[in-house]
Amino acid sequence: MLLVRVFGRRGAGADGPRSRSRTKPELPIDRVALHDVDLDPVALLGRAAYVQLAQFTALSRAAAEAPSVDGKGALADAAGRLLESHRALVGALQRRGVVPSEAMHPYVASTDRFFQTVSGANWHEALTSCYLVDGLLDDFYSRLIAGVEPDGRELAALLTGPRTSGEIVGVLSAAIAADTRLGSRLAVWGRRLVGDTLLCARAALPETVRTDAGEARIEPVLTELMAEHTRRMDRLGLTA
Amino acid sequence: MLLVRVFGRRGAGADGPRSRSRTKPELPIDRVALHDVDLDPVALLGRAAYVQLAQFTALSRAAAEAPSVDGKGALADAAGRLLESHRALVGALQRRGVVPSEAMHPYVASTDRFFQTVSGANWHEALTSCYLVDGLLDDFYSRLIAGVEPDGRELAALLTGPRTSGEIVGVLSAAIAADTRLGSRLAVWGRRLVGDTLLCARAALPETVRTDAGEARIEPVLTELMAEHTRRMDRLGLTA
Repeated sequence: MLLVRVFGRRGAGADGPRSRSRTKPELPIDRVALHDVDLDPVALLGRAAYVQLAQFTALSRAAAEAPSVDGKGALADAAGRLLESHRALVGALQRRGVVPSEAMHPYVASTDRFFQTVSGANWHEALTSCYLVDGLLDDFYSRLIAGVEPDGRELAALLTGPRTSGEIVGVLSAAIAADTRLGSRLAVWGRRLVGDTLLCARAALPETVRTDAGEARIEPVLTELMAEHTRRMDRLGLTA
Repeated sequence: MLLVRVFGRRGAGADGPRSRSRTKPELPIDRVALHDVDLDPVALLGRAAYVQLAQFTALSRAAAEAPSVDGKGALADAAGRLLESHRALVGALQRRGVVPSEAMHPYVASTDRFFQTVSGANWHEALTSCYLVDGLLDDFYSRLIAGVEPDGRELAALLTGPRTSGEIVGVLSAAIAADTRLGSRLAVWGRRLVGDTLLCARAALPETVRTDAGEARIEPVLTELMAEHTRRMDRLGLTA
């Protein structure tokens, strides 16, 4: 069975994320053998499937509240693509002979709570979360899933593909261009999201990894995730 | 150009809808030449496209609030199919060289207001609306669209296909079976929805038809719509 490396040598240090943030990573998905952690594929897929459903929920809500018809349609289309990812993960669970809802069930309450904390105080914050939180979680889950699933590469590609970012960036950039104060408020919001989101992501890792020693080993992956996050902030014209 | 008959001879009288309600109509879509009313295809498609988007919004919201993971997933899937119908109508607008958002724009405020009035006081009412209101509107729009579009038959079939009913009926029937008082409350709600929904549907017809004389001529179509509505109530075990 292929496993995924989520740990490795320590990164370049505290300035690593910022100094690497504008360069393109060599490979979108870091897939090497993982010797020290065994991920339960059903738990991982169940969690990832429910996270996609929660992302769909958040984005379809943002679509509903979009002020323009154009925005509504574009964001609803984008939400539809999250639903396709959810279905693909449900399909992977079914191929393993698992009842998808049973695999997702243990993660519903904590995932709903997390998405509530990042739902924002207004529509622009909610939509910014749909872009930044989803980006972070998808980057993270795609790394894990690429290793544990027979068709993991395809699933991972589905998660990291440009599913929703075009529409969201289009809608948000227009709003930010029209209101510079909005830009600085969303920059603050974008930075605030990171901590909670990484905690949510880490919950997918076994307990044994969530220790101080584990923290050090996971750092290179976090560095990559932060670099991608910074690129997303850049696309919105926000300082990470 | 094909046109659709939405008017015709008067029906069998006041007891027509009830007495016909358990029989299957001969044809799902009544397509004959319409001599006295000319529908603007772009207006019709724009309105129908936005109605589908509003239905998607309502159902994805109901999915988000579903108490079980099974229900959430099933209703989100169903919502995804409404989005596909929306896209198909947007495609029809594009083939006519029209900007879809411009074609939808005139109908946004009134459609949003209507969906607000049928959104219900709780989740069960909201979900019942997703089934009954969508059913009535889709039956109505499919009759109109089948006549005005070159590929109208396919679009109409898309609207009247079993897109969402399986999931919604499954979720609602289980809830009604577990709580008989819920059933009688939803029966009242189901009857209350009809008037507002038919008003919303009629708004798609030209002003000239929305007169007392027009009322009389439209009655056979309303009779058919009511028969379908009664069948949907039946499927939920509710008295129409």
